[in-house]
Amino acid sequence: MITKNQIKFLKSLSQKKHRIENNKCLIEGKRIVDELIQSGRNIEQIIVSDTFIKKNPDFILFNSEHQYEIISDDDVKKIKNTENSQEIFALVATGGSIDSNLEGPVLILNNISDPGNLGSLLRTASWYNINNIFVSDNSVDIYNPKVVRSSMGAHFYLSNLHQIKNNEIISILNKSNFVVIAATLDGVPHRDISINKKWALILGNEAHGIDREMLHIASESVSIPRLGNMESLNVAIAGSILIDRFIGS
Amino acid sequence: MITKNQIKFLKSLSQKKHRIENNKCLIEGKRIVDELIQSGRNIEQIIVSDTFIKKNPDFILFNSEHQYEIISDDDVKKIKNTENSQEIFALVATGGSIDSNLEGPVLILNNISDPGNLGSLLRTASWYNINNIFVSDNSVDIYNPKVVRSSMGAHFYLSNLHQIKNNEIISILNKSNFVVIAATLDGVPHRDISINKKWALILGNEAHGIDREMLHIASESVSIPRLGNMESLNVAIAGSILIDRFIGS
Repeated sequence: MITKNQIKFLKSLSQKKHRIENNKCLIEGKRIVDELIQSGRNIEQIIVSDTFIKKNPDFILFNSEHQYEIISDDDVKKIKNTENSQEIFALVATGGSIDSNLEGPVLILNNISDPGNLGSLLRTASWYNINNIFVSDNSVDIYNPKVVRSSMGAHFYLSNLHQIKNNEIISILNKSNFVVIAATLDGVPHRDISINKKWALILGNEAHGIDREMLHIASESVSIPRLGNMESLNVAIAGSILIDRFIGS
Repeated sequence: MITKNQIKFLKSLSQKKHRIENNKCLIEGKRIVDELIQSGRNIEQIIVSDTFIKKNPDFILFNSEHQYEIISDDDVKKIKNTENSQEIFALVATGGSIDSNLEGPVLILNNISDPGNLGSLLRTASWYNINNIFVSDNSVDIYNPKVVRSSMGAHFYLSNLHQIKNNEIISILNKSNFVVIAATLDGVPHRDISINKKWALILGNEAHGIDREMLHIASESVSIPRLGNMESLNVAIAGSILIDRFIGS
């Protein structure tokens, strides 16, 4: 049985400050909760409505070992973050400790402002098994519901995903012997770059590019040459094209 | 001077049926109208508010040969499609005739449902100078305001962009001697495929893939191998990665 106070708490997690204060976030939606269950990540609470159970009698949840709480339609309205809620939620802990002994490749997301772009980049990173992802704290909150939706639950597979200050990211990179490559508008054409050691790729803001302090620690730069007329590529698209090239090289 | 009836007409263009009936669409936003002016494409009417003029005295429009009409804030509210409108609009003709004598590469967008994905794919295509784009009529309308926003105005550079029926697309491809390649989950890994002739790439629906009739005309298939845990890549991301590979090959 969920109390009024618990509903109030779940509702509060739609705000960034409460997510950070409590190191928790509320995940919403069938496909994402499904990914969460399958990822094996620890789930503090799963919450569904009666309507959800009626509509989805075969949902994976009901054959799993997970307990779930049932709430009323009124309570769904209080805690939902989407217009047409699928009426299934999961409460998970965020945070965790940073692994600065980097093994695989690293993705630095610097000052990314659009939730859809940030989410898509996390989804691509997880597809390519890039687990070290450091998002600058001037980017949109990684647990923003729109980010989580567009990541399709990638968050829960990424073992070393953290949103931290630029200087913390710089200090981690300085301790590594990775080559740090900045994606810029005038870098080396991506087909000409050859990478012979472990790499960290920095992607910057949609309009303003990479923060100066982050740009300073890059020893190389890369760009995707323009063949047509557009002024720019979308950052999630450009970043994914670069990841695909770097992983394959 | 814009009449009440003209405002009513502009307002009606927020609906697909009126856009199709009139072969016109209303573009909204500073950056996109800017792209439109720079593209040299014929513009039927540019509409701004007083507020826009005060806020943007240096906007390219005011030094161009284009005439513009000024409307009231109340009329802006009637015709705008975004919550925080930038209060600048352009009326353009859509449609035009299909060039079926294909020269460069072809992109087939089949049953794409998300406006952001469709817009991003048009933006990427234009970046790579792919001008032949056939969007199936079961995809979201290419002149949907959200598609236009996320394309950043790519529409106006694409010389052979059309939304038509699957059988019309198939007949165009059948007349060409292009190799038709379908992006699927189990195709040839994208790094192993070699393309020695002109190509057409088909991308399909976010959840259901490519329509069967379209799939039938493909002689090859391609996929992006998964290295991590996610179930799928976003279609705009996957399509862009494939375009980047194909253009470079």
